[in-house]
Amino acid sequence: MIDKALSNAERAEVLTQALPYIREYNNKIVVIKYGGNAMIDEQLKMQVMEDIVLLWLIGVKVVLVHGGGPEINDLMARLGKKAEFVGGLRVTDKETVDIVEMVLAGKVNKTLVTLLQACGGKAMGISGMDGRLIQAEIKDERLGYVGKVTKINIDPVMDLLEKGYIPVVSTLGCDEQGNIYNINGDTAAAYIAGALNAENMIMMTDIAGILRDKDDPSSLIPRLTESEAHALYQDGTISGGMIPKVESCITALQKGVEKCVIMDGRVPHSIVMELLTNEGAGTMLTADEE
Amino acid sequence: MIDKALSNAERAEVLTQALPYIREYNNKIVVIKYGGNAMIDEQLKMQVMEDIVLLWLIGVKVVLVHGGGPEINDLMARLGKKAEFVGGLRVTDKETVDIVEMVLAGKVNKTLVTLLQACGGKAMGISGMDGRLIQAEIKDERLGYVGKVTKINIDPVMDLLEKGYIPVVSTLGCDEQGNIYNINGDTAAAYIAGALNAENMIMMTDIAGILRDKDDPSSLIPRLTESEAHALYQDGTISGGMIPKVESCITALQKGVEKCVIMDGRVPHSIVMELLTNEGAGTMLTADEE
Amino acid sequence: MIDKALSNAERAEVLTQALPYIREYNNKIVVIKYGGNAMIDEQLKMQVMEDIVLLWLIGVKVVLVHGGGPEINDLMARLGKKAEFVGGLRVTDKETVDIVEMVLAGKVNKTLVTLLQACGGKAMGISGMDGRLIQAEIKDERLGYVGKVTKINIDPVMDLLEKGYIPVVSTLGCDEQGNIYNINGDTAAAYIAGALNAENMIMMTDIAGILRDKDDPSSLIPRLTESEAHALYQDGTISGGMIPKVESCITALQKGVEKCVIMDGRVPHSIVMELLTNEGAGTMLTADEE
Amino acid sequence: MIDKALSNAERAEVLTQALPYIREYNNKIVVIKYGGNAMIDEQLKMQVMEDIVLLWLIGVKVVLVHGGGPEINDLMARLGKKAEFVGGLRVTDKETVDIVEMVLAGKVNKTLVTLLQACGGKAMGISGMDGRLIQAEIKDERLGYVGKVTKINIDPVMDLLEKGYIPVVSTLGCDEQGNIYNINGDTAAAYIAGALNAENMIMMTDIAGILRDKDDPSSLIPRLTESEAHALYQDGTISGGMIPKVESCITALQKGVEKCVIMDGRVPHSIVMELLTNEGAGTMLTADEE
Amino acid sequence: MIDKALSNAERAEVLTQALPYIREYNNKIVVIKYGGNAMIDEQLKMQVMEDIVLLWLIGVKVVLVHGGGPEINDLMARLGKKAEFVGGLRVTDKETVDIVEMVLAGKVNKTLVTLLQACGGKAMGISGMDGRLIQAEIKDERLGYVGKVTKINIDPVMDLLEKGYIPVVSTLGCDEQGNIYNINGDTAAAYIAGALNAENMIMMTDIAGILRDKDDPSSLIPRLTESEAHALYQDGTISGGMIPKVESCITALQKGVEKCVIMDGRVPHSIVMELLTNEGAGTMLTADEE
Amino acid sequence: MIDKALSNAERAEVLTQALPYIREYNNKIVVIKYGGNAMIDEQLKMQVMEDIVLLWLIGVKVVLVHGGGPEINDLMARLGKKAEFVGGLRVTDKETVDIVEMVLAGKVNKTLVTLLQACGGKAMGISGMDGRLIQAEIKDERLGYVGKVTKINIDPVMDLLEKGYIPVVSTLGCDEQGNIYNINGDTAAAYIAGALNAENMIMMTDIAGILRDKDDPSSLIPRLTESEAHALYQDGTISGGMIPKVESCITALQKGVEKCVIMDGRVPHSIVMELLTNEGAGTMLTADEE
Repeated sequence: MIDKALSNAERAEVLTQALPYIREYNNKIVVIKYGGNAMIDEQLKMQVMEDIVLLWLIGVKVVLVHGGGPEINDLMARLGKKAEFVGGLRVTDKETVDIVEMVLAGKVNKTLVTLLQACGGKAMGISGMDGRLIQAEIKDERLGYVGKVTKINIDPVMDLLEKGYIPVVSTLGCDEQGNIYNINGDTAAAYIAGALNAENMIMMTDIAGILRDKDDPSSLIPRLTESEAHALYQDGTISGGMIPKVESCITALQKGVEKCVIMDGRVPHSIVMELLTNEGAGTMLTADEE
Repeated sequence: MIDKALSNAERAEVLTQALPYIREYNNKIVVIKYGGNAMIDEQLKMQVMEDIVLLWLIGVKVVLVHGGGPEINDLMARLGKKAEFVGGLRVTDKETVDIVEMVLAGKVNKTLVTLLQACGGKAMGISGMDGRLIQAEIKDERLGYVGKVTKINIDPVMDLLEKGYIPVVSTLGCDEQGNIYNINGDTAAAYIAGALNAENMIMMTDIAGILRDKDDPSSLIPRLTESEAHALYQDGTISGGMIPKVESCITALQKGVEKCVIMDGRVPHSIVMELLTNEGAGTMLTADEE
Repeated sequence: MIDKALSNAERAEVLTQALPYIREYNNKIVVIKYGGNAMIDEQLKMQVMEDIVLLWLIGVKVVLVHGGGPEINDLMARLGKKAEFVGGLRVTDKETVDIVEMVLAGKVNKTLVTLLQACGGKAMGISGMDGRLIQAEIKDERLGYVGKVTKINIDPVMDLLEKGYIPVVSTLGCDEQGNIYNINGDTAAAYIAGALNAENMIMMTDIAGILRDKDDPSSLIPRLTESEAHALYQDGTISGGMIPKVESCITALQKGVEKCVIMDGRVPHSIVMELLTNEGAGTMLTADEE
Repeated sequence: MIDKALSNAERAEVLTQALPYIREYNNKIVVIKYGGNAMIDEQLKMQVMEDIVLLWLIGVKVVLVHGGGPEINDLMARLGKKAEFVGGLRVTDKETVDIVEMVLAGKVNKTLVTLLQACGGKAMGISGMDGRLIQAEIKDERLGYVGKVTKINIDPVMDLLEKGYIPVVSTLGCDEQGNIYNINGDTAAAYIAGALNAENMIMMTDIAGILRDKDDPSSLIPRLTESEAHALYQDGTISGGMIPKVESCITALQKGVEKCVIMDGRVPHSIVMELLTNEGAGTMLTADEE
Repeated sequence: MIDKALSNAERAEVLTQALPYIREYNNKIVVIKYGGNAMIDEQLKMQVMEDIVLLWLIGVKVVLVHGGGPEINDLMARLGKKAEFVGGLRVTDKETVDIVEMVLAGKVNKTLVTLLQACGGKAMGISGMDGRLIQAEIKDERLGYVGKVTKINIDPVMDLLEKGYIPVVSTLGCDEQGNIYNINGDTAAAYIAGALNAENMIMMTDIAGILRDKDDPSSLIPRLTESEAHALYQDGTISGGMIPKVESCITALQKGVEKCVIMDGRVPHSIVMELLTNEGAGTMLTADEE
Repeated sequence: MIDKALSNAERAEVLTQALPYIREYNNKIVVIKYGGNAMIDEQLKMQVMEDIVLLWLIGVKVVLVHGGGPEINDLMARLGKKAEFVGGLRVTDKETVDIVEMVLAGKVNKTLVTLLQACGGKAMGISGMDGRLIQAEIKDERLGYVGKVTKINIDPVMDLLEKGYIPVVSTLGCDEQGNIYNINGDTAAAYIAGALNAENMIMMTDIAGILRDKDDPSSLIPRLTESEAHALYQDGTISGGMIPKVESCITALQKGVEKCVIMDGRVPHSIVMELLTNEGAGTMLTADEE
């Protein structure tokens, strides 16, 4: 909330100062990965939706890729489904995939579509099975229906963008035989962003970005190249849950995405801040310059 | 299963005898309502999917509208959710809508999409919220989130047909405020078929059609006009669960659908039989001639 | 200039608060009449250009119609051309039309095109002769080449909008024989806005809008219907140079423009303030409600 | 004629069993060469037309190339025109070309177009002169107006396919000077199929296909590669009238056609049997695998 | 042949003097009926083709409708076919229709296509059966296959115009059952021109136009309205073979053709003279002014 | 003026004799550079406009590039602006650029547009700034705003051609910062023609073409290759004002223009003579054959 009262003249000036940023993203594809703990708070969720609709209205082609871990855990608990582990990794049996499918493609996807439309957007929610968007195969026999992406068929997303929709994608995948797989959301987003040659992939998380000292929020690293990220991984600065995030960003960069940003989804309007102001939010990763 | 061995020459002749029927439906819209008890058997489900993909390949624009009563009841039971009733009607509270959404838009929709694609089709599964396809409002305050259709925005379905997909639609609806409603599947199909000016709406049920004597399958009435149907309703021939089916058909006819067929989804390839042979299956309803 | 320092979070919030306004004008046509004393200050001119490019980027179809009185007077003075008057009205002989043409279609038009492009827009400058946009005839024999609009051929403007340009129009007109006429800029804007069924016609002037007491800027009337405007004209509140402005607005409303706004071009970013904030700027005129 | 009575359920099953074949040919180009003795029987001709319209309706792009030997001989006889021979080959003088033109482009072409349309197709009949489809030059001075194909301009055929017609092509050709040539039908079909990169070229003849023992119909060879065909030619198995048929198929394969089938036009619905059942009809030739 | 030597400057001036006429016909449809005795001389035929290609190149949409009476009589004679008469009218039996079809759709049509292409045009020759362009029924049982036009399906002609061809049409027609009819060429041209809303229908004949005194070529009537034509018919000035020509023109005018011209096909370049110079050729008929 | 009276038959024949030339230029791009002393006479100017509209009507895509030296000098004189020189070259200060802009983009451009439209054409006049058509930078610091072309953005010209306009281009250019430069007209025409891969670039001058003896008009050289032109430059045959013309032609040829013609704009209808008759006008330059 803005505590300083702003006149309309001041508001107008803020808007016109966004001009160069709007110009930069006009007609470009931006993939936003949203989900997990970043998605818990209802008011914040609404602000993220507003940001997305704003980008869509000013001509950015936004693709929203979502997960939904906490909601999945919640339904599993209610159904009395116990998690099984093999070598420390959770096993996804057929029943679990059904639960994931119901939560992601049913509840989370449609909630996001409905919110985007309540903000004035035009959205269509699909899963990785629709139009065979995400093609996958078993990653590890022991883990069951955990999928590894084998191919992205970008047509369904392009068809929806062309018809003016904000595509909202649940990260499930399928194979030729019609089996359905649970796909890691960050990885799926990276593959989709890569296949779309997106200008930007934004990873919404529940931390501020990559911190030099993970206990000190003021040590946020605003920009990193791929090799700098590699070095920080080697020296242990990038650790824990941040590792797969950074790996997904590097996958996306290698597949042709211009830049990736890991940002804090709990900060109001952080997407707009990142794309339409001069400061940015979180940590931006780019390929090494040649 | 064909127990007579057929030569390829005989097969070829059967195919060419379908010529006038193919011609009739080429490039026309056919809405198929599928769900409930008609959808239980896995092998039959696959045959229905084959029929739909066959129609799609020969140039019919098929829209598949589905319900999923038994699966909903199943999940509700597993979650220990008790049905509440007001004046004999089931109350749909927020939690129940969530369950309906997960089962229909999550599980059933994606299963149908995956099966259609395994048969060689190109499908995209959406709900009534996507692109605001089905707009609804509360039907009766006491029943909670049971929706009454207020408007069909046919654009999402047309956009998908134009891009060559078989649209698969879950019958949920939404209002301007973003509330989600459970919509009766037959009614939703009738409204959608009407808005699309479909050539044919096919209601797949688990009985043979309208029977003059409901205990005698041989008393099937093959064709009825709207007023004949009305007379049969008055004299009690149409009764019980058949009443809402017939009402939906009449709604569809009044909104511009050419013909409606109530047929037995348990008969193998009944859709192809109805559309591509000279006999038809079940009971066909048409408007009164002028 | 904003004297309060704004954080990026505050900037982001201002941007998202513009959402409903952006939605309202997305893909709509807005005609902006700019010129005369409102156009003198270079910095203000740049801000008007920024506003227009901002609207263009967020999907508004902006048409810029311009005059250029002071520059015309300036060149006439330098060429030693004396103004002639008949019955108190200035006579426009062939030589004067040449001067008007050179200043408007040559200097002013191209300067505006160049500024819009320096702000990141894509503009094309044309006159009323190009593609026979403004067809005219002599208004009064004694006044020479002063034209009365006989027909607007909207094709050239639509062709440029379709190709993604901001059309910049000099208000000259022509007849079948190839004579060129000087056309009053406000009138031309009103006819063009009407022919385009514009959502909004904005008249940039050098006063705050319609004032109840013309010496008291705080007496600004924010909204007026056509008949209220007529009453204010009858009682003398609307007088002097404001009369033709209001008449042009009424012409535009009668030809199908949704709303017209007379605003102060000397206020920084007044266009953005009017279209993208909740307050508006200047006086808005609308048709009488039915 | 099917002597076993088939129920509609059996018919429906036959139709759905054609699914994989329909899928395979959907939107592909198939060139059918029809003519000569295969075309004599009126009822069979009607069945061939039905097959073609069936393919057209299910989305195959069919091009019908026809000859008309017997009808040409018939008209020549009636006009008392004696065949002249040079070195054992028939001379085609100007008068003979006129007769060929009248019979092929006039009678046979228009009869086929009319029959296709009576079966519900949309056809347009053209010759190799129309739009300069078949460009030719003299093959052998002594033979007169017998043409050798120099170039195929595929535009006229593509234009008709794009507009939804079944193109029906008479195999005459022309040169720059406007001379008209008689072109061998099989050769013309091969060149056209090659230029179109057809999926399949079907040669309708009056024998069963390539027989290992030409007096034993049960010795039909169902599939041959190009080199196998060459070997059979060397050892004399392929002989007589079959030689030019096989040569045309090899030409077509070399120009990019996927497969060629020599089949018996006297077997009812052999085209549908070949393309839409699991058995095929006649002998299929394919390129050598690499 | 021009006997005065013209310099290129003079040629250039003639070309620019055609400017207003080119402007008038640019992108308009002109139907030219050509055939019969007007078509006998080879050199004149070439000049007519040159005229048509010239019109086509400068953007006129020309449709060439042709007959071929003398060639038909010639082939009938060669085949020893005797004409039968009923009530003074020639009977067209099945064999005769075959002959007409061969001569018109085979020989004459393809000769015209080839000539147009030798002049640099792009032509496609079709008959009234192709794409069901001319639908007909029996006119008089006793006359056999003489057809009366029941419907024009203009699609095939429009499809060819759209693809940039000069459509060349043989005046045969067909019914639903696939019967082929001989259609009077002038009538067919009038119906086609009417269905196309042609700007001009030109009837090429072998006389100068409508003469006030049929033995005095200098008595040519350059312009006639429909009612003036009616009066001349009443007083006998229009008589004999001119009557059906005039009737066809009146049919065309009533169906929406702007003007019809009966002109002498034996005068070199009479079409260009009529359309591109200030004098015209033959007699022009127009509707009565209202 | 033609002093021999020509009959319409003779006129028609002249028109048809232009057939091969019309065919050659149909749908091709021709850039015409017009200006300077060639543009002084009003009647000649009208004839040039007629020629251009004639080409446009017969399907040539004409782009008119103009200068306006004499008019610029005239306005400078009237404004008492003295020419400054540095090292013998005229300095173009900001005020001079303003004058050039007013004369070229204002007066000359709009006069040409109006004349083309009076002849029946559809024209749109733009400058090198519009849509950033001509991008330029300072050529020589001492000369001020004299621009060197850095890039041609051909989109604005193609957009206008696609929409059916004759683009009329004033040869000014701009840089990223919004500075406006005066660009040599011949050079600009060459760059534009090259970027458009024009079929022909026509340079209208006030001399007959390249003369072997510059005092003998009968010594006109009708055709030259690039190396022949180089040789004539070496031996001094090409000298004075002809040097930059020839250099521009060579630039155009090297950038892909098929042929360039230097012709006398004072000869009536010389453009039509060049393009549509067998003789040509002036001197044609082509690339060296390989």
